Amino acid sequence: MVHTPDSSGSAASPSLPVLDIAVLGAGTVGSQVIRLLGEQAGDLAARSGARLSIGAVLVRDPSAPRAADIDPSALTTDAATAIDGRDLVVELIGGIEPARTYVLRALRAGASVITGNKALLAAHGPELYAAAAESGADLYYEAAVAGAVPVVYGLRESLAGDRITRVLGIVNGTTNFILDAMATSGASYGDALADAQARGFAEADPSADVDGLDAAAKCAILASLAFHTRVGMDDVAVEGIAGVTAEDVAEAAFFRRVIKLLAIAERRTDESGHEGVAVRVHPALVPLDHPLASVSGAFNAIVVEGEAAGRLMFYGQGAGGAPTASAVLSDLVAAASHRVHGGHAPRESVYAHLPILDPGSTRTRYQLRLRVNDRLGVLSEVSSIFARHGVSIQSVHQRDGQAPGEAVIVIATHEAREADLRAVAAALAHSPAVRRVASTLRMEGD
Amino acid sequence: MVHTPDSSGSAASPSLPVLDIAVLGAGTVGSQVIRLLGEQAGDLAARSGARLSIGAVLVRDPSAPRAADIDPSALTTDAATAIDGRDLVVELIGGIEPARTYVLRALRAGASVITGNKALLAAHGPELYAAAAESGADLYYEAAVAGAVPVVYGLRESLAGDRITRVLGIVNGTTNFILDAMATSGASYGDALADAQARGFAEADPSADVDGLDAAAKCAILASLAFHTRVGMDDVAVEGIAGVTAEDVAEAAFFRRVIKLLAIAERRTDESGHEGVAVRVHPALVPLDHPLASVSGAFNAIVVEGEAAGRLMFYGQGAGGAPTASAVLSDLVAAASHRVHGGHAPRESVYAHLPILDPGSTRTRYQLRLRVNDRLGVLSEVSSIFARHGVSIQSVHQRDGQAPGEAVIVIATHEAREADLRAVAAALAHSPAVRRVASTLRMEGD
Repeated sequence: MVHTPDSSGSAASPSLPVLDIAVLGAGTVGSQVIRLLGEQAGDLAARSGARLSIGAVLVRDPSAPRAADIDPSALTTDAATAIDGRDLVVELIGGIEPARTYVLRALRAGASVITGNKALLAAHGPELYAAAAESGADLYYEAAVAGAVPVVYGLRESLAGDRITRVLGIVNGTTNFILDAMATSGASYGDALADAQARGFAEADPSADVDGLDAAAKCAILASLAFHTRVGMDDVAVEGIAGVTAEDVAEAAFFRRVIKLLAIAERRTDESGHEGVAVRVHPALVPLDHPLASVSGAFNAIVVEGEAAGRLMFYGQGAGGAPTASAVLSDLVAAASHRVHGGHAPRESVYAHLPILDPGSTRTRYQLRLRVNDRLGVLSEVSSIFARHGVSIQSVHQRDGQAPGEAVIVIATHEAREADLRAVAAALAHSPAVRRVASTLRMEGD
Repeated sequence: MVHTPDSSGSAASPSLPVLDIAVLGAGTVGSQVIRLLGEQAGDLAARSGARLSIGAVLVRDPSAPRAADIDPSALTTDAATAIDGRDLVVELIGGIEPARTYVLRALRAGASVITGNKALLAAHGPELYAAAAESGADLYYEAAVAGAVPVVYGLRESLAGDRITRVLGIVNGTTNFILDAMATSGASYGDALADAQARGFAEADPSADVDGLDAAAKCAILASLAFHTRVGMDDVAVEGIAGVTAEDVAEAAFFRRVIKLLAIAERRTDESGHEGVAVRVHPALVPLDHPLASVSGAFNAIVVEGEAAGRLMFYGQGAGGAPTASAVLSDLVAAASHRVHGGHAPRESVYAHLPILDPGSTRTRYQLRLRVNDRLGVLSEVSSIFARHGVSIQSVHQRDGQAPGEAVIVIATHEAREADLRAVAAALAHSPAVRRVASTLRMEGD
């Protein structure tokens, strides 16, 4: 698969082999990948040991206007023409089909594949890995999780000598931008979302982001890597940010916390002594002195906790054409270097086969904000509900409410089983002392 | 060099080859490496494709008390016995000699070497790389720069597809601990240092840390990796933290900044149009909203700025037995995997050969604190000195001084040439209007 230079070979590196690349999709990321392959050709050749040449660019509409650095003769609408016979295939189409068919076609033909497709990996990772292993090709996907942030690399290689206990991350820039705007300006969720849409940080249909589905796909990939266990999208317990109110955000600031949408993957032992993996995505209250609290705007950051390494954090731009293209190029250099020098990317290493734990068995902390009747004994009634469910209270803050005869009680619990915390919230909602459970937020990162 | 299992081979993985490891030095890090190799043997075998077996541990005093997981029969005081015939050699002795001789002996015999020795790499990196390339062995050194933080990996591999413009890091935990203690408690430098020594965060002779030499060695390694150019310790312009006063720290807080000892490596074009590399280590004022500002205690963090990736940050524990051992083990897994599956670590890729720029040509900002005579016209006299040297003032803050007839002026400049900023400070010291230039600190990260 390694060709010697053809007559158009670069004069600067006549002795380097040439690798033939197909780029599937020439959108925001694809066009940046093509630009950088041209601009940094010399550096990339020095690092990979090969000249990287774009043989085909698969597009839907070949007559659409393109940047000048895209060679029109490389454009094709035919997948077979684009894929067959290439050394390296970069998949940037997104979605499940036809991306899955194309990636499998490339891998089965022995081409190494670099993809930024989180949905495809979360849904069909094992099938893709098997195809790569069978033909001896590489499968790389740094760009699928957090844009430029090299967390896939970190988990697959840098932490290969450690035992990871927990991954905790901000992996969706759209929701982080919205929550950040709410915290900075006091805006409502709806106004902050509209602003994010106006500025291009949120899609017209924002549901994949704000409902937490994008974060859940990334969480599944991170958990699979961290715990050497197959974790799919369906294993992730997901809550989005649409229920977060301006009042929640203000209340968080009062308690020196900030609300972040977190993707959390943990290795834990449940109450019956079984070790397993718990994966969840939800908004949470993070203390201001936690390294994730200061991750603002569209940035991503992932904290990885290892038994030996302690707490590591990887931080950077989680989206955007050039940052995501940077991740694609680092994978391209690695895959190209393997073609030239031997070796291969880490194979999917699913050897732990840990069970996925029931989300109800997760241990976390809740902060509950209650509107109660301002009368004698109400705190005693409320706190007895916690005690009845075995949930220990860590702090209580009571103040006058806005409505007549109403008080507001904010209660933070100690760590308890998620199922017990939910039962407390349900019992409070039915208590005659409580007018309304105004908010229930988990507390993470203490 | 890959052996088949001997009769004592693990029953759990009878088909895996065995790799024979020598650990040179059984101190804080070495003993953790040995512990983890035992405790995580199964995981490490699954990830590397080999059973990792410790054949020799080189020590000075074989009769010293050891942890139970060190096999006494592996102990030796003879370097040849320890090194010769091994597949992988882990060097954790530190210092230049005899570490250099041992590492060269191992590499020339074809063993792959994992080292945590920053001084050796900063001084003799090219010689070691050449020896590794000649015999086809790997040379890995993640543990040499920032403990568990995978920044060497990040620069060598994750950012291999990008063009790095700047590396900015907190790479010395001792000085960060001292500066952090000064900021938190208002302590003097001397008291904070004594406290750090009492708690084991600073050596009895703290000069390598507080004078910035440890950070300079790491800065040289980071710059070499980032810019594909040979950068040695002597190329780094170094200032330590001994001159930082409690007043400086308080003043920084007033301006919503914090003082950090930074290692900075930049690719720049100087005034005569030459592209080159500038490397320096010095205390600097960092804005509170910069990601490095919240890196506290003995943690390390390195910001890497790439043209495509934008700003990335790597954060974690920069020292300590277990965190540093985690970095050593990740290198061990990579080197072991190459022995089994082929491939090799990235060779030193010095192809850019950029010149090292004169430190005086560096562009930065200064904050100067002046004690002046509180009389008419003094601000005009002071500001004319800046104008005369072509340095533009960004902000001025004046207040009453503590001594009678004295005022304090704090001036922040716009970006200017280091040489011009130094000339301003010298001229101010000789101005009749100025009683004393109380402090000169650079401002970074804006």
